[in-house]
Amino acid sequence: MKVVVIEGDGVGPEITGSAVRVLKAAAVKYGLTIDLQYVDAGDNALRKYGEAVPSRYWPIIGSSDAILKGPVGESAGEVVVKLRRGFDLYANIRPARNYPGVRAVRDGVDLIIVRENTEDVYVRAEYMLGNDIAIALRLITRRASERITRVAFNLAIGRRRRVTIVHKANVLTVSDGLFRDTVKEVAKNYPGIAVNEMYIDAAVMDMVRRPQDFDVIVTTNLYGDILSDIAAYVTGSIGLAPSANVGDSKAMFEPVHGAAFDIAGKGIANPTAMILSVAWMLRWWGERVGDDKYVSAGSAVENAVIKALGEGVKLTPDLGGNARTEEFTEEVIRKLG
Amino acid sequence: MKVVVIEGDGVGPEITGSAVRVLKAAAVKYGLTIDLQYVDAGDNALRKYGEAVPSRYWPIIGSSDAILKGPVGESAGEVVVKLRRGFDLYANIRPARNYPGVRAVRDGVDLIIVRENTEDVYVRAEYMLGNDIAIALRLITRRASERITRVAFNLAIGRRRRVTIVHKANVLTVSDGLFRDTVKEVAKNYPGIAVNEMYIDAAVMDMVRRPQDFDVIVTTNLYGDILSDIAAYVTGSIGLAPSANVGDSKAMFEPVHGAAFDIAGKGIANPTAMILSVAWMLRWWGERVGDDKYVSAGSAVENAVIKALGEGVKLTPDLGGNARTEEFTEEVIRKLG
Ligand SMILES: CC(C)[C@H](C(=O)O)[C@@H](O)C(=O)O
Ligand SMILES: CC(C)[C@H](C(=O)O)[C@@H](O)C(=O)O
Repeated sequence: MKVVVIEGDGVGPEITGSAVRVLKAAAVKYGLTIDLQYVDAGDNALRKYGEAVPSRYWPIIGSSDAILKGPVGESAGEVVVKLRRGFDLYANIRPARNYPGVRAVRDGVDLIIVRENTEDVYVRAEYMLGNDIAIALRLITRRASERITRVAFNLAIGRRRRVTIVHKANVLTVSDGLFRDTVKEVAKNYPGIAVNEMYIDAAVMDMVRRPQDFDVIVTTNLYGDILSDIAAYVTGSIGLAPSANVGDSKAMFEPVHGAAFDIAGKGIANPTAMILSVAWMLRWWGERVGDDKYVSAGSAVENAVIKALGEGVKLTPDLGGNARTEEFTEEVIRKLG
Repeated sequence: MKVVVIEGDGVGPEITGSAVRVLKAAAVKYGLTIDLQYVDAGDNALRKYGEAVPSRYWPIIGSSDAILKGPVGESAGEVVVKLRRGFDLYANIRPARNYPGVRAVRDGVDLIIVRENTEDVYVRAEYMLGNDIAIALRLITRRASERITRVAFNLAIGRRRRVTIVHKANVLTVSDGLFRDTVKEVAKNYPGIAVNEMYIDAAVMDMVRRPQDFDVIVTTNLYGDILSDIAAYVTGSIGLAPSANVGDSKAMFEPVHGAAFDIAGKGIANPTAMILSVAWMLRWWGERVGDDKYVSAGSAVENAVIKALGEGVKLTPDLGGNARTEEFTEEVIRKLG
């Protein structure tokens, strides 16, 4: 498996370092073949090369199987949108769940946000009309709505079989109307799955009020962005939430959280989201190429994280502990066996 | 003061009835001249006249001073956008605070969301390109950004002197960039006010994590919509949150919550948001025409609500009580003296 690593900015290098250590430990234990290549992208790359995703790296990224990406600073918008849209990583899959030993605003939550990753205002088609008027285009297509719906419903089959469509079709009658109607159309092929719908403002509120009721959420790009931060916070910490950006032939794995410049370089960042991103990457690859070793390794990494959190002896400060990034990482590797 | 009343759908007629009773009691006590006219708008109007805001009522609404509007059902998008944009009610002011006796996710919150009310995707300029592609325009202008900023900063002067700009300029560099830069430009005229900025995804999270830190939030239309629901929930209940849609010569007052069809007609809806909307209406009018009687009446209504909530003997079921809408309303009128 060819993995391109983008360390990112702020705490990025520290937590990416942890994640790679765990990845290497899992590779040894499960006999995986992992080929790592590092490329620069983000604020540093922008300063050095004048491009947040330097074009010299594009072919390297293009020929990889997966991208393992740390958080990026100011230039995050440019980096993630370029990678997501550039490689058509159309499904942004963002799980949110409680972990044993981690205090949360709400307990008993286990949901997945399936966020369309290539359209909406993220097409970045914006124009100034003179000096005083700005226009941005929001794009919604039937094709992208169909394929993200299939991802959501296929996930729901292996879960609690409930899909919530989140939109704002009371205002965006045409564009969110197209999204909603397309989801409902595709849903007919999944008769065993219950479907309901909510407006984004109500969904954000329910994400705090009763997040336990959500199973799979399917939504457009910006609503998914907003929902995933709050879902991560409500279930414990934004420091725990991994995400997968999945296309038909490539995928990118990254934490939901940002570069956290305030604690960068101190060695106390929580690497959990980044390590869980490795777990998701291994499972995704194993399923894609039909190699159970990778699936097992992915599950083992996730379980090791869950155990380390649950025992709670090596927690980082954001979770109320006083362990350093390295100590938590070693604990995870120890649990990996 | 000429007030047009729109009862709305679902629980609308019940809670509007309460609010009007309180308004009449305040008018008697404070010697106010209130001229009420009822017009139909919403789902019922749509069924009856084929228009959610029937054009026959437009001149009546146009010649009023203020609109007191209940929640509307399915056609809410059409109704509110038509009224807000049609009468250029450009500042949507949405306070969120704790009330004594009301259990909340977070305590010690006192913030105001100042939401631009005429632009963003609410211009409803949407187009199908063929059958499979939808485009929506998002509009941001310097002029609208300037005037909403002045509203926000003028409010901040009488408060904790802190304004948070909420945007997503890391993705919407041009349109949210224009909004952000315009706010910062206007802010130079208010040297005593501290300004910071946040991305909408982070702001929604912080609305749960540490809402106490917010004083005044200034933001574009859709972000304001999303933030105000969650702010209302976090401070107690969406059943408590009033809002004002203010223009240069007219204003509309309405609850943040929706029509709540599930409890409609049962006489148990919480009329607080609607009664507090009356309080805001009276104060706004008093300040506009320079008549202290109205300001005092508005404050008296608000205080009566706060007392009724604080004593907690006549709470509606949503707040854990078993009083009916009418009983709570009478309690408020009693406190009014
Ligand atoms: C950094 C930003 C552009 C990005 C987004 O909006 O998608 C981030 O918030 C995320 O959710 O991955
Ligand atoms: C009903 C809906 C169109 C409206 C809005 O989005 O503005 C509502 O959610 C609100 O916040 O007043």
